[in-house]
Amino acid sequence: MAQGTIERWDIFELALKGPATGNPFRDVTFTATFTTLHRPIEVEGFYDGDGIYRVRLMPDEEGEWRYTTHSNVPALDNQTGSFLCTPPSEGNHGPVHIHNTYHFQYADGTPHFSFGTTCYAWNHQGDALEAQTLATLKDAPFNKLRMCTFPKHYTFNQNEPEHHAFETDEDGSFDFERFNPAFFQHLERCIGGLRNLNIEADLILFHPYDKWGYATMDAEVDDLYLHYIIARLAAYRNIWWSMANEFDLMKAKSMEDWDRFFKIVQTYDPYQHPRSNHNCRAFYDHGKPWVTHCSIQRSDVEHVDQWRNEYRKPVVVDECQYEGNIPNNWGNITPQEMTHRFWEGSVRGGYVGHGETYVHPDDILWWSKGGVLHGESPARIAFLREIMEAGPQIDPLSITWDLTQGGNQDYRLIYLGRHQPAYKTLRLPEDRTYTVEIIDTWEMTVTKLDGTYSGTCRVDLPGKEYVALRVRRVA
Amino acid sequence: MAQGTIERWDIFELALKGPATGNPFRDVTFTATFTTLHRPIEVEGFYDGDGIYRVRLMPDEEGEWRYTTHSNVPALDNQTGSFLCTPPSEGNHGPVHIHNTYHFQYADGTPHFSFGTTCYAWNHQGDALEAQTLATLKDAPFNKLRMCTFPKHYTFNQNEPEHHAFETDEDGSFDFERFNPAFFQHLERCIGGLRNLNIEADLILFHPYDKWGYATMDAEVDDLYLHYIIARLAAYRNIWWSMANEFDLMKAKSMEDWDRFFKIVQTYDPYQHPRSNHNCRAFYDHGKPWVTHCSIQRSDVEHVDQWRNEYRKPVVVDECQYEGNIPNNWGNITPQEMTHRFWEGSVRGGYVGHGETYVHPDDILWWSKGGVLHGESPARIAFLREIMEAGPQIDPLSITWDLTQGGNQDYRLIYLGRHQPAYKTLRLPEDRTYTVEIIDTWEMTVTKLDGTYSGTCRVDLPGKEYVALRVRRVA
Repeated sequence: MAQGTIERWDIFELALKGPATGNPFRDVTFTATFTTLHRPIEVEGFYDGDGIYRVRLMPDEEGEWRYTTHSNVPALDNQTGSFLCTPPSEGNHGPVHIHNTYHFQYADGTPHFSFGTTCYAWNHQGDALEAQTLATLKDAPFNKLRMCTFPKHYTFNQNEPEHHAFETDEDGSFDFERFNPAFFQHLERCIGGLRNLNIEADLILFHPYDKWGYATMDAEVDDLYLHYIIARLAAYRNIWWSMANEFDLMKAKSMEDWDRFFKIVQTYDPYQHPRSNHNCRAFYDHGKPWVTHCSIQRSDVEHVDQWRNEYRKPVVVDECQYEGNIPNNWGNITPQEMTHRFWEGSVRGGYVGHGETYVHPDDILWWSKGGVLHGESPARIAFLREIMEAGPQIDPLSITWDLTQGGNQDYRLIYLGRHQPAYKTLRLPEDRTYTVEIIDTWEMTVTKLDGTYSGTCRVDLPGKEYVALRVRRVA
Repeated sequence: MAQGTIERWDIFELALKGPATGNPFRDVTFTATFTTLHRPIEVEGFYDGDGIYRVRLMPDEEGEWRYTTHSNVPALDNQTGSFLCTPPSEGNHGPVHIHNTYHFQYADGTPHFSFGTTCYAWNHQGDALEAQTLATLKDAPFNKLRMCTFPKHYTFNQNEPEHHAFETDEDGSFDFERFNPAFFQHLERCIGGLRNLNIEADLILFHPYDKWGYATMDAEVDDLYLHYIIARLAAYRNIWWSMANEFDLMKAKSMEDWDRFFKIVQTYDPYQHPRSNHNCRAFYDHGKPWVTHCSIQRSDVEHVDQWRNEYRKPVVVDECQYEGNIPNNWGNITPQEMTHRFWEGSVRGGYVGHGETYVHPDDILWWSKGGVLHGESPARIAFLREIMEAGPQIDPLSITWDLTQGGNQDYRLIYLGRHQPAYKTLRLPEDRTYTVEIIDTWEMTVTKLDGTYSGTCRVDLPGKEYVALRVRRVA
């Protein structure tokens, strides 16, 4: 007797009425066991205000699921039921996981080529600007977005958020024992909005740009917050967990805190969404077992293949500086340079992230608040994404001081970067035949050269910067 | 009874007739002691063929000089004489030495801002092309040139030289015990031609691009060659000694060989012309006491200030790759990139060298054979040189991730490189007043901003790449 249907990798939610008195966030335990076939999944529920308790599941198998709830409150305990999980609708590829050591893939087997952007605080800007951000993303080339749970206080970010994550006392101070459901309901709408655009929400759980107290909560509150946000958000198929932005700038946290945060997320997220921790200076040790991929701030993307070798995990350079013209050097590279870094990192087998920081009269910079894009790199990133998605996921093939090649023996991408050779000598297998295309990464053109190529052969080139070659086997 | 006059830092030469039989290169010793005031200078002479023996001095003091020769051959022994050293003529600033730890200066106190170029084998190309090279250099912005004693066999360098350094047997093999005076007379004309243009000749004593045997001579021949070339060339005020190009590619030489070569040059060059050793991959240890300055091949000139700190010597990045379009990545950077590297290295307190490698139907590439310049960077290097020579020699003032500044509290150069800020905040002393000029390093314009600046102040900028600022104290 299924209580309804839900498509695979969508959110099943059970809502129950329970006590609204006392402190439901702290005092009430509420979990559920979901089962399909012989596999049980334990998930934590959460209090959503107004006496409503919810528990969510992202079903990852089609067919009938059953559940039983558990609680220290009779009204929430031992409730049972079932529902039917149906096939995913078009465009729902499920959550993203690590694939072939260095890459990503959706649960349905579709490769995920990560093309991220950054709008750290877009979800704290009010409905109008948030709607505009989503409208911009609809036509943008990005399938991942870095964003913070908590509001941001920083240069170009002086506005107060609409909501706060905790209930506020009359004197304006937070009651760190009581979450504000409206804050999290709003966050969910934002993440759902991204999901509807097939954009992964790379959610930054902690960050240092704070004046309200989020960066200096005590360990008990940190952990309560992690449990609460996992209970609310893990069922969103597009969630990724970023422990922090610039974790090393958060002086109130120790390395033990970061390790503990990872372990909590690893333990309580039933779906094992991607987990990482983003640096300012030195990296968090991405070799630790609970890290699924490297989340890196560095402008020298020519080290991507080296980081792959070091950590044996996917390398995502979330922040390689931003296209823009603000005074800070992390936010004033040219669109050519941003495009260049995307290509350089991609051909070396990594994934590069975008951000944009053009001076704006109302301080609406895409990098933090969203809005609209002003730059010239997104069109080039769209062009690159199209090329990448038409080929295999790229591993470094042969990277020397003279040639940067990714791919395999049947498909290679070569990126010439700032070099402007009039010709290059390629060393292809003698017994195979290839076509060669010249890609102008800035002008966004692909020009197929006449004939086919084999063995050691000369390829004439336009003698300008930012050229790539696509070499594909035809026989 | 002076036998003539010679201007300061020019070449006094005594030529004597001696034996032409036997092996004058090996069997005849010939030295002279020159004295002015109470200071003797011992120099080695050399055999120049046809029974002529010469000994040279670059007098570094005005007034009367006396000399006495010494030889194991009576005709060359105990010859005495004197000459008068007169003031230098206009444009003769004397030899270059290290100044203020990190810089260079001519002997007359004129600062030397090193702006080098590279024509490795220009002196092996025949009279017509060599004359053209000198004519090009006359109007080029370079005051140092890297060149090899020996001819070069390498990509784009397949032609035979006009002269060889040794006498050739009938079967074409070298007699390593007998130098070919015509070869060295020609080399001297080339170095003299550079001197007449006020260009330092950074002479590369050994190099690996060889098919004739110069790279694999035995130690005795190496040392004989060093004595011979020092005897011939040390008196040229514009000579610099580069032990090798890409010393680490010369498999026949050990580190002990390189150290010995340095010590021979250090011992027998009475004038202590600059000495260094140029790397391919790892640096020769520029910290060794006989190294006067760092001669570096690296494209990451943003490390110049770090190398200064490491070696506490002048940093000359002789090879930061070349403007051009050949397939090899060391020879196909854009003129923008070359100009960028010059500025980046200069503001960090170093000296960057130029080279040019555009494909040519007859393989006449400037980097090796000279000829004419085709590129767009020399005009920008001229512009930079003019700016540098109008100010003090530059030490790093404050280099952060956000701002690269060289100079001092009264004069600073700031280089923004590939960044395109719309404005920057400068932190100047509160009690001093400055003018600010915007330098477009590519367009070669200097635009003075209205008014004066003090303390923490905002400077509006054009929001494009390759901009520098010159900030000069006025009060």
